[in-house]
Amino acid sequence: MPAPTDHELFELGDLPLQHGEILRGATLAYKTYGTLAPDRSNVILHPTWFSAWHDANEWTIKPGSACDPGRYFVVVPNQINNGLSSSPSNTPPPFNGPYFPPVTFHDQVEAQHRLLTQKWGIESLELVLGSSMGAAQTYQWAVSHPEMVKRAAPIVGSPRTSEHNQVFLKSLRATLTLDPAFHDGLYPPDAPPMRGLRAFARIYAGWGLSQRFYWERAYRQMGYPTLEDFLVGYWEGFWLDGRDPNNLLAMLWTWENGDVGKTPGFDGDTEAALRSIRCPVVSMPARTDLYFPPEDEQAWSEFIPHGEVRVLDTVYGHFAGLGVHEPDNAVIDEALRELLGRPA
Amino acid sequence: MPAPTDHELFELGDLPLQHGEILRGATLAYKTYGTLAPDRSNVILHPTWFSAWHDANEWTIKPGSACDPGRYFVVVPNQINNGLSSSPSNTPPPFNGPYFPPVTFHDQVEAQHRLLTQKWGIESLELVLGSSMGAAQTYQWAVSHPEMVKRAAPIVGSPRTSEHNQVFLKSLRATLTLDPAFHDGLYPPDAPPMRGLRAFARIYAGWGLSQRFYWERAYRQMGYPTLEDFLVGYWEGFWLDGRDPNNLLAMLWTWENGDVGKTPGFDGDTEAALRSIRCPVVSMPARTDLYFPPEDEQAWSEFIPHGEVRVLDTVYGHFAGLGVHEPDNAVIDEALRELLGRPA
Repeated sequence: MPAPTDHELFELGDLPLQHGEILRGATLAYKTYGTLAPDRSNVILHPTWFSAWHDANEWTIKPGSACDPGRYFVVVPNQINNGLSSSPSNTPPPFNGPYFPPVTFHDQVEAQHRLLTQKWGIESLELVLGSSMGAAQTYQWAVSHPEMVKRAAPIVGSPRTSEHNQVFLKSLRATLTLDPAFHDGLYPPDAPPMRGLRAFARIYAGWGLSQRFYWERAYRQMGYPTLEDFLVGYWEGFWLDGRDPNNLLAMLWTWENGDVGKTPGFDGDTEAALRSIRCPVVSMPARTDLYFPPEDEQAWSEFIPHGEVRVLDTVYGHFAGLGVHEPDNAVIDEALRELLGRPA
Repeated sequence: MPAPTDHELFELGDLPLQHGEILRGATLAYKTYGTLAPDRSNVILHPTWFSAWHDANEWTIKPGSACDPGRYFVVVPNQINNGLSSSPSNTPPPFNGPYFPPVTFHDQVEAQHRLLTQKWGIESLELVLGSSMGAAQTYQWAVSHPEMVKRAAPIVGSPRTSEHNQVFLKSLRATLTLDPAFHDGLYPPDAPPMRGLRAFARIYAGWGLSQRFYWERAYRQMGYPTLEDFLVGYWEGFWLDGRDPNNLLAMLWTWENGDVGKTPGFDGDTEAALRSIRCPVVSMPARTDLYFPPEDEQAWSEFIPHGEVRVLDTVYGHFAGLGVHEPDNAVIDEALRELLGRPA
């Protein structure tokens, strides 16, 4: 599926970034589900994961689900860099393509904060949730705006990108930029580095799902009868379908440098940043996730005053948090329902 | 460390390969440790792992160790494809470089069998052991020559390469061949695809050691003070130091296609091949190995009549079986000592 077009754009104006540049005339693409209550008391924010667009979050926003759009006003902001919000692929010089400035999770949250406060006057959030890089944004929201976030549910993600995870991301970058068609990021839009994206896909395939997933050939449950079909039909298809390499590299930078300790005021102290969180935080790592192992979230959760960890018991690895496996979806939905039911 | 030169060469003659080609004038590079007993009753065979040369096995062959060369005659055959035995890098046309034929674990074992029987008249092996691809050769020996193998100790490896492991290997191949300097394998010997090898190194770095290894920054125990130094000083240094890309790709093929069920006579039936093993097999997977997880060895071991599994409890992942971490080495040595002490 190529990028969706059913979103709206919010003019952010000039967005100062943590690393010094100002992203002039920045835009944030978003989609909303449900209706904002007159007292603005029913807002849920659900940021997006790596390479995903807003539609990838819709599995959590069904009628009858915890985040039922009949009750809540769910806002899904597309990450800066994902091709719909301001991104390497859609920004004119001097910030075009490989010249797009580095964007932190803090920057992502500040852009989203502008949308919520300037467009709708929203002052509190019933829940922030997100998977993977969306989880990192969830943690960042709880640190950056503790006065606004009543509950947080980071799924298969972390408040600081671990070194092992960084190695994975560095391997993706080294591979994608190796394709001679990459041309230092100055490839023509209609001639992206296709072989680099295919190799990128094969690396990702080994990390995204667990040893046990492949042992059980669970890709058959996803509609791919053979390993080779899963690697080409699913994985290569996914990355070759409208995902711009410069955008991917920009998101990789955000991810690799993720750390709530880098929030202004915390001077790199991740533990202090986590201690400052006021709301309940229900982290949901997956037992078999190869890059966000549950041990890491358990360790970070110890510093969060109202933090708890619920491990998804699954063979789907990282994908357990991305909505592809109904039993995992049900466990997540039940946890969200319980969390939303708590008085805040 | 570049390739060692303290080995000897055995002329294999014409070696028929499982896939149909005949490797004419093939040679097997090997090194021996200790002295062959007059009755040839003290032989240990220790095949090599991916990209390794015989010297990588010497950590198990120290005086006082289970495989003490004062007692045993230890033979370390270099894999075909590893640059010392017949390999893409040292074979003349028509089998030079990328035209070298595919070699299976069965072929590797047949070449080693020729060395042992033709050079020394060896008819039985007190122990076959090996790590990673050496473990695959160990399983293969127990299946191909049950009349010769008295005891087997496969370490961090498997009798059949799992699909998840295959995905890892496919990602390495896709990346190494992406470098334009690869030139379809026809690069000049003094101009190998260096950037491809660096990307290859970064992929491998994420797989070779565990999440917890990086979380604890255990690379400092290996002499690398920072993550970046570990990635460049250790990982890139390792792959850029005399390891020929065509040789690596040839070994990857052997590894990816590993399956004792493909031994002639078993018609692809891995379980039947394992059931045919007569000797005790002590498998030693590592708890945190990302590509040979202990669950896999447990599953395979169920089919081996005298099979057992001892899990190395370590954060060193796959490297636990490669001799880099003294506590793991000690556990392995103790298991080998116990196994060698059993009457056969």
